[in-house]
Amino acid sequence: MTIKRRKVSVIGAGFTGATTALMVAQKELADVVLVDIPDMEDPTKGKALDMLEASPVQGFDSNIMGTSNYEDTEGADVVVITAGIARKPGMSRDDLVATNSKIMKSVTKEIVKYSPDCFIIVLTNPVDAMTYSVFQEAGFPKNRVIGQSGVLDTARFRTFVAQELNVSVKDITGFVLGGHGDDMVPMLRYSFAGGIPLEKLISKERLDEIVERTRKGGGEIVGLLGNGSAYYAPAASITEMVEAILKDQRRILPSIAYLEGEYGYSGMYLGVPTILGGNGLEKIIELDLNEEEKAQLDKSADSVKNVMKVLADNE
Amino acid sequence: MTIKRRKVSVIGAGFTGATTALMVAQKELADVVLVDIPDMEDPTKGKALDMLEASPVQGFDSNIMGTSNYEDTEGADVVVITAGIARKPGMSRDDLVATNSKIMKSVTKEIVKYSPDCFIIVLTNPVDAMTYSVFQEAGFPKNRVIGQSGVLDTARFRTFVAQELNVSVKDITGFVLGGHGDDMVPMLRYSFAGGIPLEKLISKERLDEIVERTRKGGGEIVGLLGNGSAYYAPAASITEMVEAILKDQRRILPSIAYLEGEYGYSGMYLGVPTILGGNGLEKIIELDLNEEEKAQLDKSADSVKNVMKVLADNE
Amino acid sequence: MTIKRRKVSVIGAGFTGATTALMVAQKELADVVLVDIPDMEDPTKGKALDMLEASPVQGFDSNIMGTSNYEDTEGADVVVITAGIARKPGMSRDDLVATNSKIMKSVTKEIVKYSPDCFIIVLTNPVDAMTYSVFQEAGFPKNRVIGQSGVLDTARFRTFVAQELNVSVKDITGFVLGGHGDDMVPMLRYSFAGGIPLEKLISKERLDEIVERTRKGGGEIVGLLGNGSAYYAPAASITEMVEAILKDQRRILPSIAYLEGEYGYSGMYLGVPTILGGNGLEKIIELDLNEEEKAQLDKSADSVKNVMKVLADNE
Amino acid sequence: MTIKRRKVSVIGAGFTGATTALMVAQKELADVVLVDIPDMEDPTKGKALDMLEASPVQGFDSNIMGTSNYEDTEGADVVVITAGIARKPGMSRDDLVATNSKIMKSVTKEIVKYSPDCFIIVLTNPVDAMTYSVFQEAGFPKNRVIGQSGVLDTARFRTFVAQELNVSVKDITGFVLGGHGDDMVPMLRYSFAGGIPLEKLISKERLDEIVERTRKGGGEIVGLLGNGSAYYAPAASITEMVEAILKDQRRILPSIAYLEGEYGYSGMYLGVPTILGGNGLEKIIELDLNEEEKAQLDKSADSVKNVMKVLADNE
Repeated sequence: MTIKRRKVSVIGAGFTGATTALMVAQKELADVVLVDIPDMEDPTKGKALDMLEASPVQGFDSNIMGTSNYEDTEGADVVVITAGIARKPGMSRDDLVATNSKIMKSVTKEIVKYSPDCFIIVLTNPVDAMTYSVFQEAGFPKNRVIGQSGVLDTARFRTFVAQELNVSVKDITGFVLGGHGDDMVPMLRYSFAGGIPLEKLISKERLDEIVERTRKGGGEIVGLLGNGSAYYAPAASITEMVEAILKDQRRILPSIAYLEGEYGYSGMYLGVPTILGGNGLEKIIELDLNEEEKAQLDKSADSVKNVMKVLADNE
Repeated sequence: MTIKRRKVSVIGAGFTGATTALMVAQKELADVVLVDIPDMEDPTKGKALDMLEASPVQGFDSNIMGTSNYEDTEGADVVVITAGIARKPGMSRDDLVATNSKIMKSVTKEIVKYSPDCFIIVLTNPVDAMTYSVFQEAGFPKNRVIGQSGVLDTARFRTFVAQELNVSVKDITGFVLGGHGDDMVPMLRYSFAGGIPLEKLISKERLDEIVERTRKGGGEIVGLLGNGSAYYAPAASITEMVEAILKDQRRILPSIAYLEGEYGYSGMYLGVPTILGGNGLEKIIELDLNEEEKAQLDKSADSVKNVMKVLADNE
Repeated sequence: MTIKRRKVSVIGAGFTGATTALMVAQKELADVVLVDIPDMEDPTKGKALDMLEASPVQGFDSNIMGTSNYEDTEGADVVVITAGIARKPGMSRDDLVATNSKIMKSVTKEIVKYSPDCFIIVLTNPVDAMTYSVFQEAGFPKNRVIGQSGVLDTARFRTFVAQELNVSVKDITGFVLGGHGDDMVPMLRYSFAGGIPLEKLISKERLDEIVERTRKGGGEIVGLLGNGSAYYAPAASITEMVEAILKDQRRILPSIAYLEGEYGYSGMYLGVPTILGGNGLEKIIELDLNEEEKAQLDKSADSVKNVMKVLADNE
Repeated sequence: MTIKRRKVSVIGAGFTGATTALMVAQKELADVVLVDIPDMEDPTKGKALDMLEASPVQGFDSNIMGTSNYEDTEGADVVVITAGIARKPGMSRDDLVATNSKIMKSVTKEIVKYSPDCFIIVLTNPVDAMTYSVFQEAGFPKNRVIGQSGVLDTARFRTFVAQELNVSVKDITGFVLGGHGDDMVPMLRYSFAGGIPLEKLISKERLDEIVERTRKGGGEIVGLLGNGSAYYAPAASITEMVEAILKDQRRILPSIAYLEGEYGYSGMYLGVPTILGGNGLEKIIELDLNEEEKAQLDKSADSVKNVMKVLADNE
């Protein structure tokens, strides 16, 4: 018997992909292969090498390599997709969808070719639809293709609540359903500080402001950076999902999951509470929704369906 | 009695500064204030907020704020200076020195005003001379102003040796004296794998190549990135020095230290083995050098003196 | 300026005290002084030295020393009291209370003499009353004298729930009020799995069994060990409270706190939700209780008052 | 594909075994099964449960179970043997060897039955001979049966040197060959502080005292405890070896290895520098010894052979 290190491939070596590689390595979860297009091969190698050179000081034994050759991803346990373009001024949403969907198809082909048994986590926006694209292309069972949005949304929510209450982030839990950002369905009645319902600690007005700030959380960072979008918190969020799978932790985390009747939807991906472990998405947890929540979730699902329609029209 | 968190200010919110802020926060060493010029205030705030939003997921309780207002740095325990410009095509080295020295003077004034008791760690290049600039401006005792280069140089060396031997980075130690990069004086006889002298494990030829690669380590990353320089390993290196001070660890680490006769030099900063702890630079460790090493160190010192002359001419 | 390591004294070098010393050191929270009576000085030194010899391998730079001389505790930031006897067969509860109270008075005198500014955390049973004894003797403000029971009770509860649901312990939160063990008031409506109320995930019957098992959690370990009581989970619980204070984390944790009207009680210690940070007990969080909860808490408070009466009779 | 947690079995639930279980779990290296004889089943279950109840607070997702049934160890990746008796007053060394050897044979049968592919690490004394007993009984290839002594000996040495120099334990490396304790062969020329040979920093006299203290390090703890022997540092040492294997770190660590000509010995186990990784003992590193070192190692080897002779006579 030989014990081999786990292997994680990160597709897309932009800030989010690179930061994900760093965080996976820092935790010694796996060796990491950071992949980008041939034109970006050198910068990708540069980032990977720079990170690797941090390993003696940070004390981690994870190899990190940069490449544009998918052969190097062979046998990955988990593959994270961050590749894709951001929406540029003047670009229609449909063009964005079409372009990123093509990228999803293309990278998924390569992923599947070299890692036919892997778990895939998608971050590329619009993430619900892009996860669906990957799912279609990969032909994997649904437990092995998921998307990230809820871990990030709740991370932002928890940050704002901790600041409001001036308490540790460790003691704040948040809960969201549905799509990313604007389409997020906050479940305040499942969100707590030290187990205490937030409504008992924060005025409704302030809570509404915090929810609104969370919805616009991605935009807030984009607005501040001026040139680019968030990557630290997104990378941390993906890393938590990767860790849950690689350590078979059976974490209760929100994932973008393929639904077959759960919450009343079928044949589409949507953000729901799940259990993540050694089988990837091990279970979808179904909750009773009140009318308002159900209405918001419907709205969120409609958004996803609209994007999926764009996808279908493009095929 | 009240127990307050330590506070670290990082001046310069470029990639190195930002990554340092992240790593200091990840280790819960201190709250972090990330500072840049007013023009960059929003991006600085954006990076800090993005990192802070990673805290619930990464599980750290360190506040991170971005600012262009030095008032926010008040009472810092440690201040890290990463500010400064990189050498641009067509720019003479002397112009670089003059410009960065001005920046050092200007940020040091502000640092000293708001944190008169702090320890300062300088990373800006050319780092030996810039540390001297900061030392002069700050008027602090020499134990409270140091520069970073040797931790990074040895990190790179250790990485290459670990790869060569295919063993854990944890078991490789390296040792350098003198300046950064080309001016580095590698002390192979004090460099080991699991305590075993490297000469017993690696051929002289390969060792020479590894030393040469280490010397050019910064350039290798610059060449690969195409547009920018290393920041992961530099940030990790600074963070290790910050940790040694804030946890009073009395680590034996190479620092750029103010020499008063040690190794035969006076009135200048140069990379030497030191003990870093709660008093900052607690001790310079003096070693016997053989002739070749002494010659190399002289050359390294000459480089520093040349830059210091440029500094003096500019005053 | 000099940065000094924090200092924690642990009074009582039995299994709980020793394990607390280890866990505090592993996290590099502080240097640790482990104190026991002169008769036990050598074994105390032996345990401390054995732990210290683990430090190069576990990678922590915390000094650990064993002693029977309170002078060595001088200037501690936090003092943990685990000293005291366990109830022996044939010993009445009142005798136990009288004996341990005498021990509390005696060690507190020494603690206060050498660390007049410290925070004190009490673990000795019966812990509510013993914390009161320490409070009286120390003459410290109430924010600086607290007891531990709720962190441990919820840790057990969380463990059992995680096992029941086969999910990560990281995602289970629990909430208790009142006394330790049998007197514990479980607040199931503030206890969750991934934010989801436990009632939605576990049958009432099983939840009742889990609550009952938690109440008897200390006894379950005593019964299994045959000769002694739990120490791993108690030590971890104390360590979390020490960390909250030393890192000024403002954690929301249950503490045994001195009440002055909160929850309708005054002049006594009782387990309530609190915020722990750099000021020790920074705040008591008051919650509305329903009738059943209030009745249970009254019963819990009555138990404490009965023990306090024994204390008063003994003076 | 399903990703399963690694599994470690620890045979012997005394202090060393239990502390090893804790440390393996704290690092989330694996699920842990703690095994002792049927008479000790309840205390073993009690310790395991107590540790598990620490997991929500310490934040680890590793299951820990206590048992006396070897079926529960099925499919372990690594098995640690701490079982055995300590030498009692009046007991001859030969009786100790005979008794512990019987225990080794008996537990190895069970280990091999349920985990035919595992790696075995032996700690039971006299450890060189006991590792040989296990090796014989298991019929495993030599890379899968190793013993621990050098990690502990160097940990003690490093602790004493760090105290002597008043520097961080992180920067001290030590190196030993040969047997445990009295039979240890210290390799001072391969022992350093921050890469600097210890002879340059510590007088020969003090170094000799430190070596002597290291040799007697186990006895020092026994003498202080009065009733029992060291377990914190031994457990940390085993855990480091387990980690090196489970994370395939290729650490350079001293192991008790089966020699086939290396260092001039064959057909016996002896402490030598090795590389530990995913194949267990991946390599023995051979060093040139000077005459004094070779003489000491011969003496050490003779001790082991003498014990092996006792073993042979008992069969």
